[in-house]
Amino acid sequence: MKAAIFKGPGMVEIGERPDPVIQEPTDAVVRVVLGCVCGSDLWYYRGESAHAVGSIGHEFIGVVEQAGAEVQGVREGDLVVAPFIYSDMSCPHCLNGSTISCPAGGNFGNGTIDGGQGEAVRVPLAGSTLVPVPGSEHPDAVLRSLLALSDVMSTGHHAAVSAGVKKGDTVTVVGDGAVGLCAVLASRRLGAERIIALSRHADRQKAAREFGATDIIEARGEEAVQAVLDLTGGIGADAALECVGTAQSIATAFAVARPGSTVGIVGVPHGQLSFAETFFRNTGWRGGPAPARIYIPELLGDVLDGVIDPGRVFDYETDLDHIADAYRAMDERRAIKSLVRVGAL
Amino acid sequence: MKAAIFKGPGMVEIGERPDPVIQEPTDAVVRVVLGCVCGSDLWYYRGESAHAVGSIGHEFIGVVEQAGAEVQGVREGDLVVAPFIYSDMSCPHCLNGSTISCPAGGNFGNGTIDGGQGEAVRVPLAGSTLVPVPGSEHPDAVLRSLLALSDVMSTGHHAAVSAGVKKGDTVTVVGDGAVGLCAVLASRRLGAERIIALSRHADRQKAAREFGATDIIEARGEEAVQAVLDLTGGIGADAALECVGTAQSIATAFAVARPGSTVGIVGVPHGQLSFAETFFRNTGWRGGPAPARIYIPELLGDVLDGVIDPGRVFDYETDLDHIADAYRAMDERRAIKSLVRVGAL
Repeated sequence: MKAAIFKGPGMVEIGERPDPVIQEPTDAVVRVVLGCVCGSDLWYYRGESAHAVGSIGHEFIGVVEQAGAEVQGVREGDLVVAPFIYSDMSCPHCLNGSTISCPAGGNFGNGTIDGGQGEAVRVPLAGSTLVPVPGSEHPDAVLRSLLALSDVMSTGHHAAVSAGVKKGDTVTVVGDGAVGLCAVLASRRLGAERIIALSRHADRQKAAREFGATDIIEARGEEAVQAVLDLTGGIGADAALECVGTAQSIATAFAVARPGSTVGIVGVPHGQLSFAETFFRNTGWRGGPAPARIYIPELLGDVLDGVIDPGRVFDYETDLDHIADAYRAMDERRAIKSLVRVGAL
Repeated sequence: MKAAIFKGPGMVEIGERPDPVIQEPTDAVVRVVLGCVCGSDLWYYRGESAHAVGSIGHEFIGVVEQAGAEVQGVREGDLVVAPFIYSDMSCPHCLNGSTISCPAGGNFGNGTIDGGQGEAVRVPLAGSTLVPVPGSEHPDAVLRSLLALSDVMSTGHHAAVSAGVKKGDTVTVVGDGAVGLCAVLASRRLGAERIIALSRHADRQKAAREFGATDIIEARGEEAVQAVLDLTGGIGADAALECVGTAQSIATAFAVARPGSTVGIVGVPHGQLSFAETFFRNTGWRGGPAPARIYIPELLGDVLDGVIDPGRVFDYETDLDHIADAYRAMDERRAIKSLVRVGAL
């Protein structure tokens, strides 16, 4: 089959990988319909994080082509959303909501396991991993939003959940990438009354406003912190969502978080923060890789009901043959997030 | 009046300070009945944190001797518990539960403001700060427990609340000082089923067991982490409470916290922690100085009802004339926490 191959920094090319087959009775083979490029793929592409040579891509929706004998919960022909990791949903960590720590789980597109940027994927632990989508016909906009649940929207939601966003809150979202935009949408969905988005790009500001941002701050660093304080009567935000992961963005998120609040962190964090800076203000943090499998069912309902449309973060699209363009568009900041059309529904 | 005077590291002596008088209509003058020495006082005593020359001590109970014209909520003759900071309880931070960040608030015993280690205290914002104790006669054990609410028990409770301790949880408490012991008691009070205390001193192990610890681990560092994992089937604790503040104790707390949990941090933290160490396990942190004023009313009810007896952390006592002994006993680890008898009820 055709699949994107990570060959090293700057080199993601279309290539061939073996057609996936059922290896374990708990496997399913899923024919990919839509895939996309994650902000974390870009870290690999830029050589800022290591990635094995081979399969890549961990976000996809597709159709179950074959299901192993022990697979329960999904059947051949089902349209399914894949969370970005597979998990057994029966271990103590999964049962506690931490699918990312499932000892039996693992990552799609890690060089060895099939990736979402390919024609098909062998999905381990398919019954507990894949979430079937009710109904048989869905407009393209809905399919795009379902794809977003695979990672980016679940991650934005995780930022909001980790920070404890609740009805009536004032939220500040640091980061206007696809995750930051989804964090805005997730905050609106959870009832935030005021959503302050830090963004300096006109197209992303527009997207943020469409997702529910009520205020946009173009400044960064100290100036951005002061702007948030000015907007909140000197109090700070009830919840700050950190969706970047740089030392500066982390410091900004903590500085705009009001005393006693929790910063939701979903950008893979770089650098360190002195505890003492946050201790005396009682600002904490929660977050990490999102337990997408836990969130997808509830978000999926809202996508099908037209309540949320996270698929709007895809502002560039191509096909598998042009996978290199999908990366380049994001690397050159021409795209917020690249969608890859792989197969028919 | 007589009062302890901080003169520099290693030098806390009995001395004279002006008799406190009402300066603002919101002030009260409280005659101190019991005071004590805090673990943070010891940081000053040891020269590890800076402290101004002058008044010291921020934990006390006493009797209102005089109340300013605008003081509501407490009256002359009332037995009161003072939280370790004063606050207005009407600003956005106080109303949000963050009394420590009250702009009108401040610390007792900071060199200038009267301290709890003295015969009397001018209490600013007395009506919103002091918590009156119902009833007129209380056994000495109850008075000691009321004193503990001023800081140490409220702080242990804050660790448990920050970590989200709930009914049925397995909790690990790092630190067997007075705060750690109170964190054990607070965890039991909140319904924790299993409480693992890290302690290597026989007297503190005994106190921990009396407060509700079900398991004691004497090891430290990696060995302690492994012991907690062994006790929890490799999962880790539902909640880890960090009650020390050293780099090692913080690392231990994060390592024993199960994925997805929150470490409650109340030991003033020293050093840094790499975010990346905790991010991929989704372990967060919350904590800081306790909003004692928020907690005292609910804890006070349990003290009067005999449900909790945090006053047992006081295992050394003396009077104001021997304040230097109170510090020495703790500095030399002969005492968990020193009580100072100041005046009659």
